[in-house]
Amino acid sequence: MSGPLPTVHVMTVATSVAAEVAMDVTVRTSDLAEAAGNVVRLLPPRLLDPVLAGLLVRAEPDGLVLAGTDRDRAVRLRRDATTRLAGAALVPARPLAATARALDAPDVRLVVEGSRLAVRTPGARFALPLLDLDAHPGVPEPPEVVGRVPGSLLAAAALPVAGAASRDDTVPAFTGLRIRAEGERLVLVATDRYRMAVASLSWEPVRGGLDVLLPSALVAEVARQVSAASTVEVRRTGSGADRVAVSWSGTTVACGVLDSPFPDESRYLPSTVDCEVLVDADRLAAAVRRVAPYAGPFSSVRLEVGDDALRVQGSDPASGEAEETVPATVDGDPVARVFRARYLGEALSAFSGSAVRLGMRGVHQASRITAAEPAANGVDLRYVVMPIRPR
Amino acid sequence: MSGPLPTVHVMTVATSVAAEVAMDVTVRTSDLAEAAGNVVRLLPPRLLDPVLAGLLVRAEPDGLVLAGTDRDRAVRLRRDATTRLAGAALVPARPLAATARALDAPDVRLVVEGSRLAVRTPGARFALPLLDLDAHPGVPEPPEVVGRVPGSLLAAAALPVAGAASRDDTVPAFTGLRIRAEGERLVLVATDRYRMAVASLSWEPVRGGLDVLLPSALVAEVARQVSAASTVEVRRTGSGADRVAVSWSGTTVACGVLDSPFPDESRYLPSTVDCEVLVDADRLAAAVRRVAPYAGPFSSVRLEVGDDALRVQGSDPASGEAEETVPATVDGDPVARVFRARYLGEALSAFSGSAVRLGMRGVHQASRITAAEPAANGVDLRYVVMPIRPR
Repeated sequence: MSGPLPTVHVMTVATSVAAEVAMDVTVRTSDLAEAAGNVVRLLPPRLLDPVLAGLLVRAEPDGLVLAGTDRDRAVRLRRDATTRLAGAALVPARPLAATARALDAPDVRLVVEGSRLAVRTPGARFALPLLDLDAHPGVPEPPEVVGRVPGSLLAAAALPVAGAASRDDTVPAFTGLRIRAEGERLVLVATDRYRMAVASLSWEPVRGGLDVLLPSALVAEVARQVSAASTVEVRRTGSGADRVAVSWSGTTVACGVLDSPFPDESRYLPSTVDCEVLVDADRLAAAVRRVAPYAGPFSSVRLEVGDDALRVQGSDPASGEAEETVPATVDGDPVARVFRARYLGEALSAFSGSAVRLGMRGVHQASRITAAEPAANGVDLRYVVMPIRPR
Repeated sequence: MSGPLPTVHVMTVATSVAAEVAMDVTVRTSDLAEAAGNVVRLLPPRLLDPVLAGLLVRAEPDGLVLAGTDRDRAVRLRRDATTRLAGAALVPARPLAATARALDAPDVRLVVEGSRLAVRTPGARFALPLLDLDAHPGVPEPPEVVGRVPGSLLAAAALPVAGAASRDDTVPAFTGLRIRAEGERLVLVATDRYRMAVASLSWEPVRGGLDVLLPSALVAEVARQVSAASTVEVRRTGSGADRVAVSWSGTTVACGVLDSPFPDESRYLPSTVDCEVLVDADRLAAAVRRVAPYAGPFSSVRLEVGDDALRVQGSDPASGEAEETVPATVDGDPVARVFRARYLGEALSAFSGSAVRLGMRGVHQASRITAAEPAANGVDLRYVVMPIRPR
């Protein structure tokens, strides 16, 4: 024995039920479609194990629970339902989600009939094969709450930050999004090494600390789903913090933390700059978008600071040259820096609707983009973009 | 000499201009964006010859002409413009279209500046390299009018017919759409050998006959662009009919005809059927769409005629089984036929908003879909779909 076995709280699935599975429950079609679609979007798209590709459908006396797991991520959603016969079944997740989405009847009935889960509406029956419920690992109970945050704020902070993470799975640390509690602020950070986004927002700490690295694609999907929730609870396992979960409006999503070193963002956030330009984010983004087809093989646009203006320039052997002038307020030495068009565009889109301060430093030092005025929702977003070598 | 050389009327480009190209014209940005986009969509996407990938931009005293050709297809559009200096230039087509589309200034000025065509708006300049105007083959004058048809009717007939054509370029005949004049009717036919669509609409013949096979993808793009035009003129070269053109609202599109044998559609249009089912096209299409995820590896759905109903059935080893019942009026022997889900869905979508008569015959004979009532616009559409071998 190398130590005590970890305690895993498993969603109770009485094994005696498996021999004679039964269920009869009616749910609003829109609820089922939204819930099944959300589970599918929160779990990895391709799971070879058919049992893990299954959706656990559980009719309880007071509602319907959908759950799924790939052994790392675990998702559970509860929706109101009218249960005639409580029970559980495991069925292929994607066909159920596709069927629920395509239905136009207002309500749908889920009934276990022999070796099938029948999805019934007036005039139609879709019969999904029952998978082996006993072989399913179950979905663990969520760990304890460490703090709470409004869904709209979490969405506003997490979506732009997740956009700065890498999609390259060969360097796992940079696919992660770091979430750290600092007293009554929650700090979110992601970087792909060429740019970094840092957001901080107020939250309500409950107990314990939080400093974890999570898959940024999962955080982005959660952010899209929580935006209408008044409260999102953030949870983590006892001391080791090896699992994190978030809960809102009957949904719980849990996953293991990424175990990778992550840079300290404060080293990359410049406190002083050589030149600061105050400019409208959308006007500058539109200019970058128009110049981008002329940005050449390395997709590089040049920003040149002039008197009361920022000039956006591109040059390409085939397309020709482009230059657009955007009105700006300039403070400091006029400089010129070259950026990748996409990184600049994505950074600016995070500040859409507001004016930004673009702070530039040396040729090999990151430039900083911040909102000119504090955001009304209190989310403080800072973006850092590395210039590329001038042409 | 094997005969007289063919006469090609080329858009006049004075060669003396090439040495000192000049142009200065102002046009509405939305007009330029729409016109340049239309030219790009009407020409093949990848042209290796940079001269043929160029767009001929010609400022005339009373307007702006955009033209392009790949030596087979030729496109010419005219838009209102304010010309300060008449002239012509050849520039890369796609960057011009992308730039015009991205601009938000109301007007745009095109000026030849040295070796560039400058696209200017207040605060922005996009400079496209001038290509060799002398090397461009020019765009032929359109041939003579053989008849006229309203744009909305041509669009209503050509789009569903083009959808029945093959996308497989290795069998060119089945990528074609046949257009044939029969007195005061125009008949459009396309087939990929598994289904066939035939539309007929009234038109105004002017002179000469018409029976040509054209690339269906080009016909579909033309159909999308003509839908708002009150009159579309159909043209063809003198006797050989080796080139066809259509003109509407300042636009002319010409192309060579496909020289392939094409089946006589009357052989495939059944006059009698074993069983005819009257059913709502959208209800049946929705049922087919819902059953499709259960249609199995060959994507086959079964239609079973019952009393006052059509049952749509699917079965798949992984997803399970589906059956949906659609109310129908049945006339004849109850039969069952298996169809590819996509073909059935596309056929029904051509009749969206109306009831259809589905006429079924033998297992190896094509089934027929026609509108239950004549269409208000007088376009008569008949669709034929081959059943597949029953499972």
